[in-house]
Amino acid sequence: MKISVKVPATSANLGPGFDCMGMALPIYNTITLEETVLPGTGVEINAINDEENVENLIAEQAPMDENSLIYKAVELLYNSIGQTPSELKITVQTGIPIARGLGSSASVIVGGLLAANELLGHPADEQAILSLATELEGHPDNVTPAIVGGLVLSSLEDDGRVVYTKLNWPEEWCISVCVPDYELSTDIARSVLPKEVPMADAVFNLKHLGMFIQAVNNRDPELMKLALKDRLHQPYRMKFVTGLDRIVENLKHEENVLGCVLSGAGSAVIIFSLKNDIERIKSVVKETWAEMNVKVNVMTLPVEQQGAYIIAD
Amino acid sequence: MKISVKVPATSANLGPGFDCMGMALPIYNTITLEETVLPGTGVEINAINDEENVENLIAEQAPMDENSLIYKAVELLYNSIGQTPSELKITVQTGIPIARGLGSSASVIVGGLLAANELLGHPADEQAILSLATELEGHPDNVTPAIVGGLVLSSLEDDGRVVYTKLNWPEEWCISVCVPDYELSTDIARSVLPKEVPMADAVFNLKHLGMFIQAVNNRDPELMKLALKDRLHQPYRMKFVTGLDRIVENLKHEENVLGCVLSGAGSAVIIFSLKNDIERIKSVVKETWAEMNVKVNVMTLPVEQQGAYIIAD
Repeated sequence: MKISVKVPATSANLGPGFDCMGMALPIYNTITLEETVLPGTGVEINAINDEENVENLIAEQAPMDENSLIYKAVELLYNSIGQTPSELKITVQTGIPIARGLGSSASVIVGGLLAANELLGHPADEQAILSLATELEGHPDNVTPAIVGGLVLSSLEDDGRVVYTKLNWPEEWCISVCVPDYELSTDIARSVLPKEVPMADAVFNLKHLGMFIQAVNNRDPELMKLALKDRLHQPYRMKFVTGLDRIVENLKHEENVLGCVLSGAGSAVIIFSLKNDIERIKSVVKETWAEMNVKVNVMTLPVEQQGAYIIAD
Repeated sequence: MKISVKVPATSANLGPGFDCMGMALPIYNTITLEETVLPGTGVEINAINDEENVENLIAEQAPMDENSLIYKAVELLYNSIGQTPSELKITVQTGIPIARGLGSSASVIVGGLLAANELLGHPADEQAILSLATELEGHPDNVTPAIVGGLVLSSLEDDGRVVYTKLNWPEEWCISVCVPDYELSTDIARSVLPKEVPMADAVFNLKHLGMFIQAVNNRDPELMKLALKDRLHQPYRMKFVTGLDRIVENLKHEENVLGCVLSGAGSAVIIFSLKNDIERIKSVVKETWAEMNVKVNVMTLPVEQQGAYIIAD
């Protein structure tokens, strides 16, 4: 039996929504589980680059062995029904750039869980998948949109349940995903965050997350311009994202730009804009980063409304 | 000339929305400014209890002299056009209990500013009133709903502007305001808050404020039950609000109760419920507090959608 799952990329944080807001994007990893016929052959993991995505820079760096995230995900689902994976061939067809803050690790976790769940006859429901994925990822803001699609606020509650609520992103607002040619380790990007933050900064993000949600719900671009601010993670990570401050500065006077935020822990940057000024935005981003010898791939994408799904063989 | 302004009470914080969320309630202070005919008579300030509100416990404790908040508010508006108040009689007809976290101080600030603005021919627009009121109060979460009415998220931005956005409170959700017979100084309640908070607590409130806003917008009571939690102020203030933890505990199993939160800095407590189970809620609250020798007045009120307004003489 052979099961393939297509999982979207995700961008989390999105300005004020640190560790709770995330959106799915139409860039994909495809995870395939195949039962091998020979007993005792163990688990084999392969990664191949998605040929359609010529600009991705992935795969070869990911540690593709049994310690990898995808194996852990598959194993976690098998363990949840008292089994151990064996005689399995796992293939990851990678379209999502790694170490750019685009949910590459969340996607293999989600893909591994959903493929194993399909292979084993659906022992886990959506809530169980959400909880297992969050357990592996540490927080639910990437895995939730990867599973359910769309723009989602999610929270791991004290009882272990993942609660989520979807927002309707205004279709007329453009999302430009700027992927620079350097990686940023999520572990490093997370290690620079302080354990304690000023109360004023906590309140600052509260207010601006509230404004973000209201701006999206009311399709209010002026409120969105004010909302896309953060004091909980971007200031600490700024020094790792070469040029982000200059991109923000250079886009400040573009009237169609709603805001410019770090995608996840970076290094990708997302620019929200009012109408499709993509060529202008592209050139500002490319020129700014070029001054610092950084190449960048800018893609203008809609929100992926569909979460991960099983694809026909 | 004589100007009267009727200003609603307000409840701020409302669970996860520390220092940014607030709602207007139909309990009022009425502030009257009267130009006196004799020059050189200075400014006289009087407070009288609203006879309709037999249970209020106010007025006599408020320092009703030229140092009082209301005088400062009137003076601030006069100063903003280069004038100084004199030959004025200021009267505060008080219906809002003081030092209970119901926006009594915000109401006199707002009433003073609006009455003076009316008397002087409207030199200040809404934004100027919001900014002046926030300057005096220190944060905008009480003054904004007092000025604009409704359930409001507000933020004092770096440029001094107060940005606000209204939410539509579901009419079928009841608000029970429980006013105990003891006061709580806002200054003391604020002094116990730490300058720094755990990042995890900042993120906790972010998620739950997001859930709060989505629950209100989508009229989703199950989400609201999960949303009404806070780690930024209530845990620190709990010890000053005798019995709050026991009220929360005793209401936990009432299926119609959405949540139980501190109103502002307390001492009042607000209970949100799904339908009008007011007698049941009243008895739980009264009995719990009675065990600790605290008397309480429970009022079930709608959101006051109208902000402060000038009333005819």
